[in-house]
Amino acid sequence: MVTLYEHPLSPYAQKVKIALREKGVAFEAALPGGLGAGDAAGEFVAANPRAEVPVLIDGGTAVFDSTIILEYVEDRWPAPALLPAGAADRARVRMIEEVMDTHFEAVNWGLGEIGWFRRAEGELAARLVAAAARQTRGFFAWLERQLGDRAWFNGEEFGWGDLAVAPFVGTSVRVVGNAPAEGCAMAAWLERASARPAVATTLA
Amino acid sequence: MVTLYEHPLSPYAQKVKIALREKGVAFEAALPGGLGAGDAAGEFVAANPRAEVPVLIDGGTAVFDSTIILEYVEDRWPAPALLPAGAADRARVRMIEEVMDTHFEAVNWGLGEIGWFRRAEGELAARLVAAAARQTRGFFAWLERQLGDRAWFNGEEFGWGDLAVAPFVGTSVRVVGNAPAEGCAMAAWLERASARPAVATTLA
Repeated sequence: MVTLYEHPLSPYAQKVKIALREKGVAFEAALPGGLGAGDAAGEFVAANPRAEVPVLIDGGTAVFDSTIILEYVEDRWPAPALLPAGAADRARVRMIEEVMDTHFEAVNWGLGEIGWFRRAEGELAARLVAAAARQTRGFFAWLERQLGDRAWFNGEEFGWGDLAVAPFVGTSVRVVGNAPAEGCAMAAWLERASARPAVATTLA
Repeated sequence: MVTLYEHPLSPYAQKVKIALREKGVAFEAALPGGLGAGDAAGEFVAANPRAEVPVLIDGGTAVFDSTIILEYVEDRWPAPALLPAGAADRARVRMIEEVMDTHFEAVNWGLGEIGWFRRAEGELAARLVAAAARQTRGFFAWLERQLGDRAWFNGEEFGWGDLAVAPFVGTSVRVVGNAPAEGCAMAAWLERASARPAVATTLA
């Protein structure tokens, strides 16, 4: 049995769960003890000295970093393929993943710092929230250009490019309240993606 | 012709140059104008809004992020393969790359901030330099465990695991003066790697 150390709110762990579910790989989800409190330990920390989720344990193999885990999942359980076939398309969806992981998420996280941890209040908080909404609209416009006239970010079939976007946009819509404009291509994509069982189960 | 936007001192660009040279892919190296000065422009910035090197241009395909470029190079010019064959070994060398990119490099960079930009001087600088040397020894010990009794980080043949280590250890040894202890397995690996034409040309 595969074990995935994760946190239900981690978009990075959600990426991996969508991939495993799309491929029909059974896994046990485990919440590491002490996560975020500085006293994580055991197999989880041995596998990832950063003590960050996700970590995937597959028999004697332990893999950290959501991107490296996705590559491992694709190598280990190749069917159905989640990466597109051509080198240029593969690079394209990997770049989409990188932008979501390192840029889009930073805005969501910043809003979490305000909303949950009260790092800013009053007029300053309002200014930061407005700036985040503006930045998110910018990312939605960038994503629309990436989508072009494709059904999925991956191409004709759902895949890597889509599972890399859904968790972050999902958090943006459901947790921090920044959604794509009604009727736009991104909104239609989000509806299609959210109806997919692997995504619906993961983001429920 | 392939164009690689790079900087000769960037270990991230060096990774890509070693890969291209190992595969015998001819490329033109270009130093982006305005790099680091805030006025980079043109094809380079269109390809990577972060305005960071490396960026690879291959006909109509532009790829940023050294890891994604390495994946692209492997997909586009599969022979000779730089990734090992098995899923677990591929994950292992990708994790080595991640540690070098995000942890090892941070120590080198910190030393650059002191040595070149004089961010700290006197007793504080001496304390930070000593801490960096200690951290680097810790990474060397970690790398020795990764190497085990292998000839190369990749396994029996030079590959991804090795080109991901050589630029960062090279900078550590030649620029900031932290070298593996004489006679240890890492020192022997470094000598073997440095003698390899693709590495020697790139790190010259």
